[in-house]
Amino acid sequence: MELTHFDENGNARMVDVSGKDVTHRVAVACGKIIVDELVYDAIVNKKVKKGDVFSVATTAGIMAVKKNFEIIPMCHILNITHASVSWKVNENPLSDGRYEIDCMCKVECEGKTGVEMEALTGVSVALLTVYDMVKAIDKGMIIKDIYLKEKDGGKSGHIVNNL
Amino acid sequence: MELTHFDENGNARMVDVSGKDVTHRVAVACGKIIVDELVYDAIVNKKVKKGDVFSVATTAGIMAVKKNFEIIPMCHILNITHASVSWKVNENPLSDGRYEIDCMCKVECEGKTGVEMEALTGVSVALLTVYDMVKAIDKGMIIKDIYLKEKDGGKSGHIVNNL
Amino acid sequence: MELTHFDENGNARMVDVSGKDVTHRVAVACGKIIVDELVYDAIVNKKVKKGDVFSVATTAGIMAVKKNFEIIPMCHILNITHASVSWKVNENPLSDGRYEIDCMCKVECEGKTGVEMEALTGVSVALLTVYDMVKAIDKGMIIKDIYLKEKDGGKSGHIVNNL
Amino acid sequence: MELTHFDENGNARMVDVSGKDVTHRVAVACGKIIVDELVYDAIVNKKVKKGDVFSVATTAGIMAVKKNFEIIPMCHILNITHASVSWKVNENPLSDGRYEIDCMCKVECEGKTGVEMEALTGVSVALLTVYDMVKAIDKGMIIKDIYLKEKDGGKSGHIVNNL
Amino acid sequence: MELTHFDENGNARMVDVSGKDVTHRVAVACGKIIVDELVYDAIVNKKVKKGDVFSVATTAGIMAVKKNFEIIPMCHILNITHASVSWKVNENPLSDGRYEIDCMCKVECEGKTGVEMEALTGVSVALLTVYDMVKAIDKGMIIKDIYLKEKDGGKSGHIVNNL
Amino acid sequence: MELTHFDENGNARMVDVSGKDVTHRVAVACGKIIVDELVYDAIVNKKVKKGDVFSVATTAGIMAVKKNFEIIPMCHILNITHASVSWKVNENPLSDGRYEIDCMCKVECEGKTGVEMEALTGVSVALLTVYDMVKAIDKGMIIKDIYLKEKDGGKSGHIVNNL
Repeated sequence: MELTHFDENGNARMVDVSGKDVTHRVAVACGKIIVDELVYDAIVNKKVKKGDVFSVATTAGIMAVKKNFEIIPMCHILNITHASVSWKVNENPLSDGRYEIDCMCKVECEGKTGVEMEALTGVSVALLTVYDMVKAIDKGMIIKDIYLKEKDGGKSGHIVNNL
Repeated sequence: MELTHFDENGNARMVDVSGKDVTHRVAVACGKIIVDELVYDAIVNKKVKKGDVFSVATTAGIMAVKKNFEIIPMCHILNITHASVSWKVNENPLSDGRYEIDCMCKVECEGKTGVEMEALTGVSVALLTVYDMVKAIDKGMIIKDIYLKEKDGGKSGHIVNNL
Repeated sequence: MELTHFDENGNARMVDVSGKDVTHRVAVACGKIIVDELVYDAIVNKKVKKGDVFSVATTAGIMAVKKNFEIIPMCHILNITHASVSWKVNENPLSDGRYEIDCMCKVECEGKTGVEMEALTGVSVALLTVYDMVKAIDKGMIIKDIYLKEKDGGKSGHIVNNL
Repeated sequence: MELTHFDENGNARMVDVSGKDVTHRVAVACGKIIVDELVYDAIVNKKVKKGDVFSVATTAGIMAVKKNFEIIPMCHILNITHASVSWKVNENPLSDGRYEIDCMCKVECEGKTGVEMEALTGVSVALLTVYDMVKAIDKGMIIKDIYLKEKDGGKSGHIVNNL
Repeated sequence: MELTHFDENGNARMVDVSGKDVTHRVAVACGKIIVDELVYDAIVNKKVKKGDVFSVATTAGIMAVKKNFEIIPMCHILNITHASVSWKVNENPLSDGRYEIDCMCKVECEGKTGVEMEALTGVSVALLTVYDMVKAIDKGMIIKDIYLKEKDGGKSGHIVNNL
Repeated sequence: MELTHFDENGNARMVDVSGKDVTHRVAVACGKIIVDELVYDAIVNKKVKKGDVFSVATTAGIMAVKKNFEIIPMCHILNITHASVSWKVNENPLSDGRYEIDCMCKVECEGKTGVEMEALTGVSVALLTVYDMVKAIDKGMIIKDIYLKEKDGGKSGHIVNNL
């Protein structure tokens, strides 16, 4: 199937994974959102008018994991076998008086390619959902440090990143 | 991959099915809609202005089966191998003069988890589509008795429910 | 723009609402799910492994309200201005020892057509999500009595249905 | 699981592929768009205001390949392993002074059914995207000759179509 | 809001229609599919195993009209007020013995930009759905001559194209 | 329409904007990705195998702006009138030898609520797409500092944030 007589403009492509092995794949991605004290109080005391922030954000993150192939153009459709989102609210403020909320998203599948993007999209959407639910309170929030914490399965083996 | 230092707020998750076997899965779900005589006549005589009610509703139900993973937050993406929707219009009215239309949705896949939700979502959307197409005629319709009629494959074996 | 020389096979259509007025539209739909005592306990005591049932189901219902135009073929895209989902768990069992959980979905928009289908789809998906989250416990649940409770705005005025 | 007591109205169905073999499937679809000289110049010289036409159209085509199961009602969800879109701009005008731009979409998967529709949808959406990006310049474009060029894998073996 | 210090790579954009007037917009797009005699017979005599071809294809086309903004990257979300799909089966074969089936999609909205792409996407998806439903019979079908037949509303006024 | 007899579990809701004014809304969100020298070279010299990174990422970002209402649970469907994504590659490396790529997403609409989330989702997805396209080269990338740079329209007036 010779395509070489076609020019090479617009050559984006979904890479061919046909020949890769099906293995168990795991990826964990992390990120954080920096909020002010009013948001911190509202979340911890469940006083946010739009609803329980972490529950809605967790649901959004998990749904985004499954939608990843529709959001990131060159990602494959994968049959995710597991997805979860976890949260850690740091009780002590940063030096500027703001608070840090950490989010972690873990994804697993049996497939021919990894689930890094699924985990990164999951954590991003979970944090954006937190932002949405409290943006009436704090207009200066920042989402930071979204990265791949851990990955396993596939050719590149076990990878651990530490910030 | 230790997540236990994270708090347990917002702990919704897609359950891990990595370790489950791939088997042939079947599910059949049923439901019904109760309509008045005008709707009954319009459907049976194909006089509904929006189009052929059962054909559109069947198509909607089958498309919903495939979209189930986007609609129900904790459901897995499954490679459905078969989906169909069937209808039975009861010619005799109920004791209050209204008519009952039955709907059944059957779904199959080869996978690590069952297709109950796909079948239940399929039958629900098929019935909602009937509702939409005739709601200009009857504003008092009721969708009733959506349940899992039959299920096979996986750990829990063959299950049959009768109302 | 004369289309009459075309045959009338496959004549489903999204009805033309171009000439209708933009008014404030409200719709409230209801439905219920019948569960066994184990499910009742698990939900009330928040012991369901997949997460907080009502929070996830509420989120799913609201997202389905916005997706209604993608799910029900002949529905219009509407700029929903408000959507909410509420729950009532009946503490007293039914005569057969099972429990009834009621769900209500309210939707509003400013538009040329009503939001009944949005509310009905919202309540259906919210109930299906409850089903999904507890189906490991009870394999005999039934979703019942999905109907339009109340509607306002548009040509047909204020409508109230009572079961 | 006997459904025969149900009538046969609305009998659309996703065909059952449960019993088919998983094989490597390939499909290549082609199509073209006929544009005027102004569009030809704008594309070749990358002067289109909406962006780089072939890059956006390629991305749209690949995303449509993955969305095919949502767009074409009776198509299966498949785990596509590869998708690409290629372009050929013919430098010599047609006899009427217009120009022909060819598009080809290649899709592969390991699955129980073929990827013809994925390739055909991919090439259609890629060409529609070209149309969209230059429609301010030329209001008389035509999309032509969308067909399956080549197919392999599955029961019907290797098929080649030539126009 | 000065963005000029940013480079100009990747400059695709959804054009700004903020300043345009809201007017009534109409677009009609056409296309055709060329099929063999077996397909012609199967469709006309409603013997296609996947279901009633025109009904399913019409539903798919209308749903695609509403999904257009998700499929074509730079298109706007529009509140479509009307969409329909019509069919004409030509009873006399072409000179090569094949048959021509014509499809027309009409879309209307009140908006700041036109609905050409919605109509073109609708007709393309309707024809692709016909292809899918009969591809088991004829592996040499061609989709041809997708173009904008008529357009009204907006700055460019009433446009009629004839092939 | 009294809902107060319903319990308050699962009380997430899309806030009611029915009574708010339709005004012109603008939002600009920013973010960045930190990459190693190999990625920097590959992007600048357009040697990335998956395609032109910024073009694909810009397209993904704009499509995500339109999908925001599907991704972030409590966001409204808005008729976006404009969306664009811009990039700045910093030629000088950071003190650790890594490079910083900045992304900005601007969104406008005429609506009853703001477009902050659309802009933030757009910039997040654009950066995630960059990540995806070069992740074969650098497994230690970080996405940082996603925040609302500027906002106008609506009750809170003109807001400018500086990091």
